[in-house]
Amino acid sequence: MPGVTHGVGRAPANIALVKYWGKRDEELNLPVTGSLSISLGRLGSAVELKPTGGPTDAVWLNSAPLPLNSAFAKRASAYLDLFRPTPGHWYEVQARNTVPTAAGFASSASGFAALARALDDLYGWGLSTRELSILARLGSGSAARSLEHGFVEWQAGSEPDGMDCFAERVAAEWPALRVGALVLCSDEKPIGSREGMKRSVETCGFYREWPGRVAEDLALLKRAIAEKDFAALGAVAEANALAMHALMAATRPPIVYALPETVAAMRAVWAAREEGLGLWFTMDAGPNVKLLFDAQDEAAVRARFPAVQVVAPFA
Amino acid sequence: MPGVTHGVGRAPANIALVKYWGKRDEELNLPVTGSLSISLGRLGSAVELKPTGGPTDAVWLNSAPLPLNSAFAKRASAYLDLFRPTPGHWYEVQARNTVPTAAGFASSASGFAALARALDDLYGWGLSTRELSILARLGSGSAARSLEHGFVEWQAGSEPDGMDCFAERVAAEWPALRVGALVLCSDEKPIGSREGMKRSVETCGFYREWPGRVAEDLALLKRAIAEKDFAALGAVAEANALAMHALMAATRPPIVYALPETVAAMRAVWAAREEGLGLWFTMDAGPNVKLLFDAQDEAAVRARFPAVQVVAPFA
Repeated sequence: MPGVTHGVGRAPANIALVKYWGKRDEELNLPVTGSLSISLGRLGSAVELKPTGGPTDAVWLNSAPLPLNSAFAKRASAYLDLFRPTPGHWYEVQARNTVPTAAGFASSASGFAALARALDDLYGWGLSTRELSILARLGSGSAARSLEHGFVEWQAGSEPDGMDCFAERVAAEWPALRVGALVLCSDEKPIGSREGMKRSVETCGFYREWPGRVAEDLALLKRAIAEKDFAALGAVAEANALAMHALMAATRPPIVYALPETVAAMRAVWAAREEGLGLWFTMDAGPNVKLLFDAQDEAAVRARFPAVQVVAPFA
Repeated sequence: MPGVTHGVGRAPANIALVKYWGKRDEELNLPVTGSLSISLGRLGSAVELKPTGGPTDAVWLNSAPLPLNSAFAKRASAYLDLFRPTPGHWYEVQARNTVPTAAGFASSASGFAALARALDDLYGWGLSTRELSILARLGSGSAARSLEHGFVEWQAGSEPDGMDCFAERVAAEWPALRVGALVLCSDEKPIGSREGMKRSVETCGFYREWPGRVAEDLALLKRAIAEKDFAALGAVAEANALAMHALMAATRPPIVYALPETVAAMRAVWAAREEGLGLWFTMDAGPNVKLLFDAQDEAAVRARFPAVQVVAPFA
């Protein structure tokens, strides 16, 4: 492709309000269920991609070169394998996360979504958002949800090739919605999501009930969004996160991400709610807790959680 | 019944290794699944029962009179209603718990088992252990398991009248088995087992998979007992307890008994095991953690958990 020198892409991070846990296809990252997330506005990833002479890919994160055997560099190279015009065609990947360092927001979703956009830019494919969602999903399942801002629903689809498995924006604005990150632990997770969800699907009998639970929770969440019912949104997000962590705990052997600080934060949220504050939480596959609240309560939330990092998804 | 002046009964406390969560009959305390417990030797309850002139029952616990509207006094009176020769026939109940105060061992199981024995003694029924198990169950489900020492299996049964729903001793001795109580919180539970399990059965989709899970875990546990395989016993008890707490967390609204200290204790057990110590835990419907270990490791367990209260079930 003569004349093409580099491509760029950006994508927001996202946090699921109804969770993704379990694949129906490991290779294509096709999920068993749908999920619904909120994108985190300016927080996310930017990727610059250019062909290089090799003799390998070169992956940089926030201006530092990554060892090629690091988890992210390996995943990025394996992803780029899908797109090399010829074997031995190498890339330099400059990735920047605008998520605050160690804020506990997953960066693989925004990273692969930005990389898909950079590929599209580099090669001038002119793909639609839907097509980019499919492409990003091949790098990381939840990346399918990081091509859009606002609320995003990822359809599980049913086709074996995954061409009906993409995410789309939910037509709703909620400018007062706030997401607060409580960073309780920034260590590497003892077991990654990919391995954890595989183990749940294979060994956790409760998993058979998960698709039905997600279907119910998606319906509740979409109604809450349509009706701008914040208490309903918070309740379904919190309960769905606890149900996902329940699946993990009932897996054999059990997967428990919670730390003492996780339970302390959950209980602090419940105590705040008992006192009338409109505060809920969600948790991804890790020990960190994300708060959900309305902009009008930000001062009260900060008073209780001084270390909270607040994101305005619709700002 | 002239000449009968008083009856006495004693019963051990028990802790389930495969848990009981969910009733198929609320009135008769018939469980959805079987369960298997270890009785706690000399720790338990003693009850002295005698008819009195009234005008109400009088219930004493550890030499202190209980208000008649206290939870235990109300449950004891409601239970005695089943046996009064005539309405207005009142009892004085003197209950003593030999469980260390606030050790986090449930006393309702041993209390109702001891009360069933005291009724049998008072009226000279000469009931078999199996019949006493059925009788005790009417007061508190898990009391069915407190009529025997050692390992005790409670059959779920299938008859609507519950006459095939009783517990029996598992023929096995395991003198080196130790149970350690870590008391993390002695407050009243925010939601009792009776209400909690009802809510799980009614609202938790995962509950549909619970009977299958219990059946598997009972088979694993009975094999571990037969083969004196302590690691297998510990693993199934720990995983089953986590699965029960998972059911609770996936209930709507969620039920979470864990405190920060609960997670800290769980993680301390896992850390000890990583270092080679044969240590597992179980938890009932509450925040407290019970350790399971072999007598040879008692010093090592005490070194890590100085406040542990150790019970030798077969001593």
